[in-house]
Amino acid sequence: MKKIIIINGPNLNLLGKREPNIYGSLSFTDFFETVKEKYSNVNLEYFQSNIEGEIIDKLQTCGFEYDGIILNAAAYTHTSVGIGDAVKAIETPVVEVHISNTFSREAFRHQSFISPHSKGVILGFGLQSYELAIQSFINN
Amino acid sequence: MKKIIIINGPNLNLLGKREPNIYGSLSFTDFFETVKEKYSNVNLEYFQSNIEGEIIDKLQTCGFEYDGIILNAAAYTHTSVGIGDAVKAIETPVVEVHISNTFSREAFRHQSFISPHSKGVILGFGLQSYELAIQSFINN
Amino acid sequence: MKKIIIINGPNLNLLGKREPNIYGSLSFTDFFETVKEKYSNVNLEYFQSNIEGEIIDKLQTCGFEYDGIILNAAAYTHTSVGIGDAVKAIETPVVEVHISNTFSREAFRHQSFISPHSKGVILGFGLQSYELAIQSFINN
Amino acid sequence: MKKIIIINGPNLNLLGKREPNIYGSLSFTDFFETVKEKYSNVNLEYFQSNIEGEIIDKLQTCGFEYDGIILNAAAYTHTSVGIGDAVKAIETPVVEVHISNTFSREAFRHQSFISPHSKGVILGFGLQSYELAIQSFINN
Amino acid sequence: MKKIIIINGPNLNLLGKREPNIYGSLSFTDFFETVKEKYSNVNLEYFQSNIEGEIIDKLQTCGFEYDGIILNAAAYTHTSVGIGDAVKAIETPVVEVHISNTFSREAFRHQSFISPHSKGVILGFGLQSYELAIQSFINN
Amino acid sequence: MKKIIIINGPNLNLLGKREPNIYGSLSFTDFFETVKEKYSNVNLEYFQSNIEGEIIDKLQTCGFEYDGIILNAAAYTHTSVGIGDAVKAIETPVVEVHISNTFSREAFRHQSFISPHSKGVILGFGLQSYELAIQSFINN
Amino acid sequence: MKKIIIINGPNLNLLGKREPNIYGSLSFTDFFETVKEKYSNVNLEYFQSNIEGEIIDKLQTCGFEYDGIILNAAAYTHTSVGIGDAVKAIETPVVEVHISNTFSREAFRHQSFISPHSKGVILGFGLQSYELAIQSFINN
Amino acid sequence: MKKIIIINGPNLNLLGKREPNIYGSLSFTDFFETVKEKYSNVNLEYFQSNIEGEIIDKLQTCGFEYDGIILNAAAYTHTSVGIGDAVKAIETPVVEVHISNTFSREAFRHQSFISPHSKGVILGFGLQSYELAIQSFINN
Amino acid sequence: MKKIIIINGPNLNLLGKREPNIYGSLSFTDFFETVKEKYSNVNLEYFQSNIEGEIIDKLQTCGFEYDGIILNAAAYTHTSVGIGDAVKAIETPVVEVHISNTFSREAFRHQSFISPHSKGVILGFGLQSYELAIQSFINN
Amino acid sequence: MKKIIIINGPNLNLLGKREPNIYGSLSFTDFFETVKEKYSNVNLEYFQSNIEGEIIDKLQTCGFEYDGIILNAAAYTHTSVGIGDAVKAIETPVVEVHISNTFSREAFRHQSFISPHSKGVILGFGLQSYELAIQSFINN
Amino acid sequence: MKKIIIINGPNLNLLGKREPNIYGSLSFTDFFETVKEKYSNVNLEYFQSNIEGEIIDKLQTCGFEYDGIILNAAAYTHTSVGIGDAVKAIETPVVEVHISNTFSREAFRHQSFISPHSKGVILGFGLQSYELAIQSFINN
Amino acid sequence: MKKIIIINGPNLNLLGKREPNIYGSLSFTDFFETVKEKYSNVNLEYFQSNIEGEIIDKLQTCGFEYDGIILNAAAYTHTSVGIGDAVKAIETPVVEVHISNTFSREAFRHQSFISPHSKGVILGFGLQSYELAIQSFINN
Repeated sequence: MKKIIIINGPNLNLLGKREPNIYGSLSFTDFFETVKEKYSNVNLEYFQSNIEGEIIDKLQTCGFEYDGIILNAAAYTHTSVGIGDAVKAIETPVVEVHISNTFSREAFRHQSFISPHSKGVILGFGLQSYELAIQSFINN
Repeated sequence: MKKIIIINGPNLNLLGKREPNIYGSLSFTDFFETVKEKYSNVNLEYFQSNIEGEIIDKLQTCGFEYDGIILNAAAYTHTSVGIGDAVKAIETPVVEVHISNTFSREAFRHQSFISPHSKGVILGFGLQSYELAIQSFINN
Repeated sequence: MKKIIIINGPNLNLLGKREPNIYGSLSFTDFFETVKEKYSNVNLEYFQSNIEGEIIDKLQTCGFEYDGIILNAAAYTHTSVGIGDAVKAIETPVVEVHISNTFSREAFRHQSFISPHSKGVILGFGLQSYELAIQSFINN
Repeated sequence: MKKIIIINGPNLNLLGKREPNIYGSLSFTDFFETVKEKYSNVNLEYFQSNIEGEIIDKLQTCGFEYDGIILNAAAYTHTSVGIGDAVKAIETPVVEVHISNTFSREAFRHQSFISPHSKGVILGFGLQSYELAIQSFINN
Repeated sequence: MKKIIIINGPNLNLLGKREPNIYGSLSFTDFFETVKEKYSNVNLEYFQSNIEGEIIDKLQTCGFEYDGIILNAAAYTHTSVGIGDAVKAIETPVVEVHISNTFSREAFRHQSFISPHSKGVILGFGLQSYELAIQSFINN
Repeated sequence: MKKIIIINGPNLNLLGKREPNIYGSLSFTDFFETVKEKYSNVNLEYFQSNIEGEIIDKLQTCGFEYDGIILNAAAYTHTSVGIGDAVKAIETPVVEVHISNTFSREAFRHQSFISPHSKGVILGFGLQSYELAIQSFINN
Repeated sequence: MKKIIIINGPNLNLLGKREPNIYGSLSFTDFFETVKEKYSNVNLEYFQSNIEGEIIDKLQTCGFEYDGIILNAAAYTHTSVGIGDAVKAIETPVVEVHISNTFSREAFRHQSFISPHSKGVILGFGLQSYELAIQSFINN
Repeated sequence: MKKIIIINGPNLNLLGKREPNIYGSLSFTDFFETVKEKYSNVNLEYFQSNIEGEIIDKLQTCGFEYDGIILNAAAYTHTSVGIGDAVKAIETPVVEVHISNTFSREAFRHQSFISPHSKGVILGFGLQSYELAIQSFINN
Repeated sequence: MKKIIIINGPNLNLLGKREPNIYGSLSFTDFFETVKEKYSNVNLEYFQSNIEGEIIDKLQTCGFEYDGIILNAAAYTHTSVGIGDAVKAIETPVVEVHISNTFSREAFRHQSFISPHSKGVILGFGLQSYELAIQSFINN
Repeated sequence: MKKIIIINGPNLNLLGKREPNIYGSLSFTDFFETVKEKYSNVNLEYFQSNIEGEIIDKLQTCGFEYDGIILNAAAYTHTSVGIGDAVKAIETPVVEVHISNTFSREAFRHQSFISPHSKGVILGFGLQSYELAIQSFINN
Repeated sequence: MKKIIIINGPNLNLLGKREPNIYGSLSFTDFFETVKEKYSNVNLEYFQSNIEGEIIDKLQTCGFEYDGIILNAAAYTHTSVGIGDAVKAIETPVVEVHISNTFSREAFRHQSFISPHSKGVILGFGLQSYELAIQSFINN
Repeated sequence: MKKIIIINGPNLNLLGKREPNIYGSLSFTDFFETVKEKYSNVNLEYFQSNIEGEIIDKLQTCGFEYDGIILNAAAYTHTSVGIGDAVKAIETPVVEVHISNTFSREAFRHQSFISPHSKGVILGFGLQSYELAIQSFINN
């Protein structure tokens, strides 16, 4: 069974609470439970941190052992050279996802330090973005 | 059955012939036949043109009738305000796809006039990008 | 009787169908019939294309014979060096018009490759922009 | 009878005297007399000042009472956030006009703080720009 | 008793009349009367002008005699090197205030020629910004 | 009694020790004790961290319960999309403060990712900036 | 005998008619006849279109069979990622030519999406530019 | 006898009072008296205003009658398109002067809207700049 | 004996594992043991963290006691105002080092928030960069 | 017989020695001997210097006497206003050549201070660029 | 008697020969003879070189002995950090002069690496610029 | 014995004389004598020129024979594509050094055309920078 981890960045722990008109009213852990059940043929894990360096730590830990990483670095997407470097340094392929369409938001959200080193990018589909990322690893 | 069209832009008719190290050696029509068979529960069509205005024409024709449009505008992605306007003007949701990871190529390929008006963006997965786009309409 | 042609660019054929809150709900051909009747002292023609090169073709054909050209190049206004070159190359004076106020929209709509070579620019008056352009040729 | 005022900005009082190859050799007050006679079905007024703040004062005074304002802010067009704010703050619709084609002149004349808040923009027709602006209010 | 003057720039005389959803519906002179009463232990004055140079004149007049100046230069904040120079040239400390949060508005309102020479900046609190500025002089 | 927390970002724990010519020689905890006594009618708390993510954690914890947050994110002000997102996501109003006048320092300190989402901004008054922020919540 | 095609872009069909002070008064087809005779040891063809996509079509058709392509994409030189991509995708070497010295004209004509993928660039020699391009293939 | 006027812009009336380490401690009117005596073979006048529009007014009044204008527009140098337009519109040659070396100060002081239309520019010599400007008219 | 600490930033703990063609295949702790032995006349310590704030913490702790700090902030070099502020705030001199030649890599790696406050910068020598930094403190 | 000089700039004396994968392994003087023989109907000379000012000297000496100058200013192409000025100042027409395709190299090599003043530009053909330049003078 | 040297940069030795509509038809050495006679109360010398480094050499030689240097670095004005550094390094005051009005020419001529370190700048007066510079040293 | 040359660029011959607060009061030749003695196990040479092309000449001469080059190109660091090209073209490794910390000085000194092609960069250590560069070759 493939081992896949979803790594979420800052403020995504507020999902369901924060700006529901943009991100919906479901909490991410609720969503994760549903997804885990739906994709029972893969071994799914979940990690969230508001701390840039802890995301780097996690990428390093999983990045030589797991079969796939689904990374929504949220705000750090646009500012973190360090997470981008980690994605480049590890061996596990990383799929970058975003819930909202970052290209219809502020200009500073159009740049990603992660995209150039990702296996692929999926964004704008709401929480379905995560499911498509899982499918990208299964179908692969 | 959902009616979905794949619209491909300039030079994608050279697929299999052009720079195979980036785009693979399969022609797109061969790929399309495989995909059509695989996703027999949707009504899939295919259109390609090297002419910007013909892509706009096609978007206008399908854009009030089809259930989904999968658009790889290729080079026009980065320069065509007109295709972006068409995507915005029509009612059918459009998923933007790219075969290669546009963010690991030249800087002018990092900007898209289509993304802000798309339902979602999927890029970098090779031809699998198209399949994930189909799945995004099916699962939806 | 003066011979004047209105040349419309991409997506203007969707007028009345596309984003009516910005462009109104009247189709352009309906509007054109009304205007033709109203300004019966001029010989008015109408042409629309989504294809940049066909607009250039038309400008070349009319540009040494007609008394005036009213050009709403829509999206191509902001990207087409070729249409700008055609306007500069021909002898018939060209009045640039826009339905919406392009300066209260996205920044990339503030630049026009046509304006520097136009006899004049009229924008933001809705469909009345076309009428004022006709009047500019009559009064002249 | 509609009440309309033409407000002219800096150096337009030199018209007829200043660079006649660009602006013509007619003084603006002479032109205004002709126009007033020609459009006897509207109540036309004229105001000119070289002082930015006096133009703001005038916009505030007329901006809740008149039916239309025709504003050629000249040099202040490109630098005055204050006049732009006044145009936005008042209720009377403002049509921005320019005698010359500002887009075929220096780059700093391509930006206008007034355009985004105007009902419409008319430029490049010489003094006819003012007449078309008057017609925009009459036909309206 | 400390002598403090509030100097307001262009269009602030429209307060209560102009865009009330941004600036509230109270006129500034009404507000000033309330404030004057509330802070009876300081000698408060008020000056407003739409003319950049008159604001410079006032700063020069008060700037070597008063104990504090509260300056809301409004639109001139973003364009006036001259007011900035005056603030730097005088001896009385100047507190820059803004009613709205200029940083959540257009990009050109994010730059201030006054801030670098101010004792401090207070913005975004609505009319309370002025009160906090007064308190900054009292507590001082 | 209103519940208000002061959140300080990186290097502010060095206050009194670091560059005293810019920041003064009082330690922040000493200052906090004085302020707490002076404003005994509010419930004041204090938190400091050099870690961006811990500041986000704290904003999330307090941001749905406290009456006010006074945030001096220091260096993170200029680089942290994540703190800006947190400020936007929470419900408690946030007042941004800075001890020094950031606009008279390096250009990169003129941009703030926090300001657009703040209730207000107070800067340049030295430690008095914090007091004015407290007053803004009391008077409110 | 080497097979070489000259592909001309938009408005070059106006040669001899358009701005003769810049481009001379000879029509391109007249010039082509002369050149064909002069270089009778090569098989010369000529194609012109105002439509970007038709130029891409032609490049694709000739690009795997001819010995050389001489491309003057005119206005599309500066805006067409699609033509640049086609030049890169095909196998036949492409020599980019321009009649006028594009570097002594407007700044937007200084950028070419074709140059990086060309075998070489020849510009500024008037119609002689085409002859030098032919010679580059013969001498080769 | 040649008729020459010195026109000074905003804050130059503070000379001798304002930042004496940059501008010296002599008032301008004192300096003017000395200069007038020293250059008794020319008819020297002096005008100062803090109001941009009054400087334009003065330039228009003198600009068709005087033999020379010495203009130190101070802060308006860097922001006033209107004064630049006036200098261009009038017939009297204008020599631009600055007391300090504007190029060793803030970057926004390196741009002048007046320089391109001036007969010449003299800067950095302290008050001697004015004397050299007078000499430029005498020797001429 | 001089007390010197090497502080390493994000992803440097992957040395020997990550992209060995750029960084070599030796782990940093192995390298550190060798160096410690070689430079037995100084007291050498080593610290690494992926967390920006922990690097700030460490700089603050050592920065008033140690004789020298050798800092390779890796990715944070290019984005961390906070680390730059810490380097400026402390008293111990900091030598900035990089293993690779940052100037032959991506443009965003050419900017350093640390350099302006460093005693010196040494980069591009591979792991020898650290040794030269140690020598700079010894020879000093 | 026409008198033509080839002027080569810095590092071109290393040809054959320097980066042969880009510039080939033939020395320029060897190449020059071959060319001289081949084009025996013109009087060919050769000059090389690494010193910017010596290239200017040479252009001035030849620029009023020779029939043609072929200039490869190499690195100075992109930085020398002085050589550009010399090319503009002299009477002999100058053809700018480059061995490599400067547009497929670093961005700073895309700008040329010489191109705007050249008779024409030929680049990317390897050493054949020089031959085409000679032909441009012969055929002329 | 004061010792003053005029140092001229590249292409100024062509004066009288080069573009006489901009620079006049008098050679500089002729002009220098006239000036020397006219200002017989100063010891005037003249030096010209097309080589940047020779200008630096000359500045170093004179810069600790002469009373004044008049420097027209021509093209090097806009590109030479080295000449700027030399001007800053020496003790003799340097007056920067230009014959033409550099601000009414190309944008790259608006920047000077010399101005910030000059005693003063005089430009646009034709050859009179040099005379005014001499007067600035005499009157001083 | 390794053969190493120090090449110094413009104005470094003024060391000890020029701005001693930045560069110290020791002349470079004095310093060189000390260093030569101290590092008697290497063959050290010294060359200085103010002329860009002479530095290129020297790099070419030594660049295929010496074991190491220590290059402080001073002002040319920031403007010379030619020196950068020479460093890239030669075979001897080049270590770039600077006496002062170029990153704490003007912005134009932050860019180096030499760094990308250097073996390593050492800056900010005063004259010790040269010693560390020597050590980098010895230890190597």
